[in-house]
Amino acid sequence: MVKINFKKDRISLNHGSGGLAMIQLIEQLFKPAFDNHWLNQGEDQACFEVEKGRLAMSTDAHVVSPLFFPGGDIGSLAVHGTINDLAMSGAIPQYLSASFIIEEGLAMADLKAITLSMAEAAKAANVAIICGDTKVVERGKGDGLFISTTGIGRIPEGIFLSAAQIKPGDKVILNGSIAEHGIAVLSKRQHLDFTTGIESDSASLHELVQLMLTAAPGIKCLRDPTRGGVATSLNEWAQQSGHGFLIDEQQIPVASDVASACELLGLDPLYIANEGKLLAVCPEEDSEQLIQAMRQHPLGKEACMIGQVIEDPRHWVQLRTKLGGKRLMDCLTGEQLPRIC
Amino acid sequence: MVKINFKKDRISLNHGSGGLAMIQLIEQLFKPAFDNHWLNQGEDQACFEVEKGRLAMSTDAHVVSPLFFPGGDIGSLAVHGTINDLAMSGAIPQYLSASFIIEEGLAMADLKAITLSMAEAAKAANVAIICGDTKVVERGKGDGLFISTTGIGRIPEGIFLSAAQIKPGDKVILNGSIAEHGIAVLSKRQHLDFTTGIESDSASLHELVQLMLTAAPGIKCLRDPTRGGVATSLNEWAQQSGHGFLIDEQQIPVASDVASACELLGLDPLYIANEGKLLAVCPEEDSEQLIQAMRQHPLGKEACMIGQVIEDPRHWVQLRTKLGGKRLMDCLTGEQLPRIC
Repeated sequence: MVKINFKKDRISLNHGSGGLAMIQLIEQLFKPAFDNHWLNQGEDQACFEVEKGRLAMSTDAHVVSPLFFPGGDIGSLAVHGTINDLAMSGAIPQYLSASFIIEEGLAMADLKAITLSMAEAAKAANVAIICGDTKVVERGKGDGLFISTTGIGRIPEGIFLSAAQIKPGDKVILNGSIAEHGIAVLSKRQHLDFTTGIESDSASLHELVQLMLTAAPGIKCLRDPTRGGVATSLNEWAQQSGHGFLIDEQQIPVASDVASACELLGLDPLYIANEGKLLAVCPEEDSEQLIQAMRQHPLGKEACMIGQVIEDPRHWVQLRTKLGGKRLMDCLTGEQLPRIC
Repeated sequence: MVKINFKKDRISLNHGSGGLAMIQLIEQLFKPAFDNHWLNQGEDQACFEVEKGRLAMSTDAHVVSPLFFPGGDIGSLAVHGTINDLAMSGAIPQYLSASFIIEEGLAMADLKAITLSMAEAAKAANVAIICGDTKVVERGKGDGLFISTTGIGRIPEGIFLSAAQIKPGDKVILNGSIAEHGIAVLSKRQHLDFTTGIESDSASLHELVQLMLTAAPGIKCLRDPTRGGVATSLNEWAQQSGHGFLIDEQQIPVASDVASACELLGLDPLYIANEGKLLAVCPEEDSEQLIQAMRQHPLGKEACMIGQVIEDPRHWVQLRTKLGGKRLMDCLTGEQLPRIC
């Protein structure tokens, strides 16, 4: 079999043909990187055993531009993103599938770096990438690389998280400072390219979630505020629960360099995507011990209470501003930042 | 909520933002079309119950061009393709996820037609599309629409299909005439656009598979010869099993208009993608009753034996030609037809 030159070669249409070139790519890149017995069987599907119980399934298309950004790349993002969607149901992520849509001409070196980054993120989360697919589109019909990942996770017995359980008086908890992912990606856009030390917060949150569920079994629901940011996630909850939210702007951690970048660019951090943040709603009596438990985990060090659920037949999300006033925090309308994830 | 005009509107970047426009798309198109209680819950993941046993998981990226072709479209194809990959393990498909990567400017009418086609294909197969994702890329950074689907199916107890079980003397069975999908798609390419009555064979094969496993429990393995065609699937089996194949060209059904189109275009039907065909390997003693059983199903009416497994340390796939000679039938090298699925 011809050896791929991972320094010089580029992706050609042949790599998506189902023929020899694709087999080379699988044998020389994907199999050794993802390295698990499901993938090694080389079937068109992967089979695994399950116990009786509940599973969670989630899928995400990743089209982030550029492919590499401070704190991550499309590969690690594609793993973290789907793991986090599973984790928000309380699930322990187990298996991932990965489907690659590659633009002809992508540097093999970039594909390799991204694949290794995916593999590393999956291994760190104890998740196996067990099946995949590769398609190649002609130059000008894609944009380097798109990755869709789908995940399967096991929901521990007794865990049923749902926005329908939210009640007035419940507290809203956040695990750390917001808007870092969006600003980190934006800082590398060709037409902007400003220099900051801001890195994406992209990370797998399932470990933190398990710790939270142990510390506060009364948790009502969890959500990761990605596209649309914290403001949009809270509005979704308000709609689903039929209640309102009163959020305290002062309590929401925003790193000073992120705040400056937002001011400069005219962006509201509450609407900017995060990839390693979560919101939790829990009964007031559990909130203190939940925050204390979260602070024991590296991804929860800055955990804090940012507001509460209130009775409100209009299902508004209101923000008590730093100046003491109140303003309505609506769902994202329009598009602040296209292709951020 | 603003009503989408499905006749006149086009997809904008807003529809991938995670904000209001995306919620409109989900509420007014995806939820009513796919219509199931998992999707209706509006969470970032879907949860379902499983019994103890084995599951199969498979994923496919679909980038077919054009989006609509005789006998199907990217929507029905995305459902059939993943269902078939599951079915080849003997699994009964249950759940699908769908991730859409849409190019800005796609006509809402096209997206609606494709979504309805997906919904219809899924419903016909008794499979629920339980979670999804929508991303939009700028004009010129995609090509209308790409759809990645991932499926989960349950493998009935006692079913373990694997190419490792293939033995010399086993027979190779095919369910019908080949190369229709590839030629149907090709006939609509902008630079070709020839008129034939050829339609894609795109179809869900899981029902036929269950019927086959009942009729011939000794079936060793199944494969759907999509990209790379029958020739490539047989070569994969030869490599995995360590045996050779001797195939009888005369026995392989090719419709006369497909044969003519192939001759005209200089294409070999054995390398052209199918989307409703399967190959089976079974012990000789089961082969007759298997073929008889297959012929009772609409998708197996033309079922026939096309060859057998032979001892061959070189793992060759050989074709006994219509003229009586023998030729080597290698794996697909290069790319006959890009973006056929």
